[in-house]
Amino acid sequence: MEGKGIDGKLLLLEKSDEISSDEISHLAIDIGGSLIKIVYFSTNSKCSTKDEAPALSKERQEVPNGDLNYHILSGRLYFVKFETSKIEDCIKVLASKKLQQCGAQCRHSHAVDKIKIKATGGGAFKFADLFKEKLGITLDKVEEMESLVAGANFLLKAVNREAFTYIGGQKEYVQIDQNDLYPYLLVNIGSGVSMIKVDGEGKFQRVSGTSVGGGTFLGLGKLLTKCKSFDELLELSHQGNSRVIDMLVGDICGGMDYTKIGLASTAIASSFGKAISENKELEDYKPEDIARSLLRMISNNIGQIAYLNALRFGLKRIILGGYFIRDHAYTMDTIAVAVDFWSKGEAKAMFLRHEGFLGALGAFMSYKDENADLMPLQLVEQQPPKSSSCIVDRIHNSTCVHENETGAVDCRLRVSSSFKIYDEVKRC
Amino acid sequence: MEGKGIDGKLLLLEKSDEISSDEISHLAIDIGGSLIKIVYFSTNSKCSTKDEAPALSKERQEVPNGDLNYHILSGRLYFVKFETSKIEDCIKVLASKKLQQCGAQCRHSHAVDKIKIKATGGGAFKFADLFKEKLGITLDKVEEMESLVAGANFLLKAVNREAFTYIGGQKEYVQIDQNDLYPYLLVNIGSGVSMIKVDGEGKFQRVSGTSVGGGTFLGLGKLLTKCKSFDELLELSHQGNSRVIDMLVGDICGGMDYTKIGLASTAIASSFGKAISENKELEDYKPEDIARSLLRMISNNIGQIAYLNALRFGLKRIILGGYFIRDHAYTMDTIAVAVDFWSKGEAKAMFLRHEGFLGALGAFMSYKDENADLMPLQLVEQQPPKSSSCIVDRIHNSTCVHENETGAVDCRLRVSSSFKIYDEVKRC
Repeated sequence: MEGKGIDGKLLLLEKSDEISSDEISHLAIDIGGSLIKIVYFSTNSKCSTKDEAPALSKERQEVPNGDLNYHILSGRLYFVKFETSKIEDCIKVLASKKLQQCGAQCRHSHAVDKIKIKATGGGAFKFADLFKEKLGITLDKVEEMESLVAGANFLLKAVNREAFTYIGGQKEYVQIDQNDLYPYLLVNIGSGVSMIKVDGEGKFQRVSGTSVGGGTFLGLGKLLTKCKSFDELLELSHQGNSRVIDMLVGDICGGMDYTKIGLASTAIASSFGKAISENKELEDYKPEDIARSLLRMISNNIGQIAYLNALRFGLKRIILGGYFIRDHAYTMDTIAVAVDFWSKGEAKAMFLRHEGFLGALGAFMSYKDENADLMPLQLVEQQPPKSSSCIVDRIHNSTCVHENETGAVDCRLRVSSSFKIYDEVKRC
Repeated sequence: MEGKGIDGKLLLLEKSDEISSDEISHLAIDIGGSLIKIVYFSTNSKCSTKDEAPALSKERQEVPNGDLNYHILSGRLYFVKFETSKIEDCIKVLASKKLQQCGAQCRHSHAVDKIKIKATGGGAFKFADLFKEKLGITLDKVEEMESLVAGANFLLKAVNREAFTYIGGQKEYVQIDQNDLYPYLLVNIGSGVSMIKVDGEGKFQRVSGTSVGGGTFLGLGKLLTKCKSFDELLELSHQGNSRVIDMLVGDICGGMDYTKIGLASTAIASSFGKAISENKELEDYKPEDIARSLLRMISNNIGQIAYLNALRFGLKRIILGGYFIRDHAYTMDTIAVAVDFWSKGEAKAMFLRHEGFLGALGAFMSYKDENADLMPLQLVEQQPPKSSSCIVDRIHNSTCVHENETGAVDCRLRVSSSFKIYDEVKRC
């Protein structure tokens, strides 16, 4: 199981204990076709990263304006994921936590039915009975697109150094002017791909999508290379050469000048096209070359369809979410180049550090005070980077994980006494 | 080697002799990444189909207006293909013909350099030296997009019962009003896919394309199923079930109603997505299911990108060419449904009986009188079908090949004495 703090550092949560128990006050879940993503808030300062943990407060605080109905909890948001196929593991981990213990203790009280976790993704429907049966918890369903959009809007507005472009092998963080954020195209690459035109808070429309997404990469990749996991396949692709199997324009045309129709001789004419004419079998190809061609085919296709949809609605900004990219340089480069190529530089692909957690974050944000329509989450802005070198991360391969990032993001949760989950948990 | 007459009937040309020798007066070639397509005109009435051959004339005829510089040859256009990887076979067949014998006999005359064959496709550049060396023939290159467009325009305008829609498993021939033909989107699916906005004779622009095309189907298909040929793979896909490997919306969401975002539970959420979570290896899947999913993924993707480009330019008609579809019901259905779904019924996919020969036909059409810009080819209109049942072919599976078609299309070639190839051949 892997997780990461809001600062983008990977926290390896090797034991279930690593999701701190009594500190969890709010938790939301996004159950997709391939992955379960969980976002939870904890006041626990336990952290396996080396950077200094922010001063965290377990205590309820009165809000400055003296409104006693509201309290502020300081803490940190955590992000963890499981494979959907291992949902039993996920349930076991949750079962061992106080949130669940609470559910169990309250089983015979009237409160039992009120223990709800905000949940989104198709699996929130499919696995609702399982959660009820095993954990006594009701999944309080939040519409998937709504969650994705809320999560993306939150990240883009509230979290510093969240969005970045990737041009010529260089990452450049972009702080988008909030007055200039909308409209944008949100491309969420999960097992499949959804493309959503976002016009504002809660204002959006699913305009397109494609079935050629992360599930295709891993599904086809497993069949072709015997890799067992997405990350293994990504790592493999890093060492491969797509020219071995892809048919390039130059392979078809010899020395012909194809530039007048806008194609370089190194452009891919046909993905996997070289495999048609050679007397080679699957075993004769290196798995890394196959993984590379597959990744390029899918990334390029997503970039192209995203661009065509952005063009359709005059959107200059394409924000990529989902758990497909994973900070992988070649994937980002392929998508960014595809968008740049097809749009002739007019549109830009932008990536998110917390790309995989849009849905879960959005579901988390939907914990609202029932008496007032107030966002429960408030973020204290990250401290400015200590040196200018922190502003732009220049990464040259996919293994570099935000070396220059040191600032953690404090998170404050505004909680009212009428706020269901919090109260349920605390009462127990 | 396979060929088909202009009437759409497959002529199996099992021996090289089947390309008649002394009867060939004009021949054009399209050398693509996967296939070599040849169109030739012959006055030979030899034909392996059972329908009555039209009355063909070998003699030169004076044109009715008495212009002695022009003659009319009656005959038939033939269409044959080879795999590009077997180009040597193609050259051997051509070498055994009078066209080549002529070239050989003339080797020491000044005429040798004047023997030219109109050629298009990337391979016309790549294999130019090979044709010169082995056959003494110069490939007179015709720009690829130009050829595709000329070929498509010719078929759409001149050949009866050429274009058809495919809706609900039914083929419906459409004779397009020539005044209402332009603009349309020509989608040529070869190894890769080119998308061309056609505005008139010789007026066009390549607006898009995708590397996920016929080469991807065969390349990935060979690696995944061990099929050796495109047709074998297509036939295999006919027996398969894509739901075995594709992750459907219903697989992710259980009973959730996804219709509000326009997705049915049977829609594919992720192509090959089911392969991610199962402990199955390639050998555990049926090749036919893999072939089916692959065909659906690629066909759907092409349909979607085609629609997005048609939308971009306000084109209602999407004409599919290339050698990908091959009258295969499932492919046509997938593309037609994709275009219909994404366009909400606004745009229509239309297929062509001679889809594979647009480029070769266009190159053939480019044999022009050097003194006058006249099309050398004139078609005598096909006789109207004998019964109304001929108008609409209702085919329910991919094995039914135009049962109701009986009318052959006579073809007349208008030839002038200044017309190079014809003269070269006749002189020898």
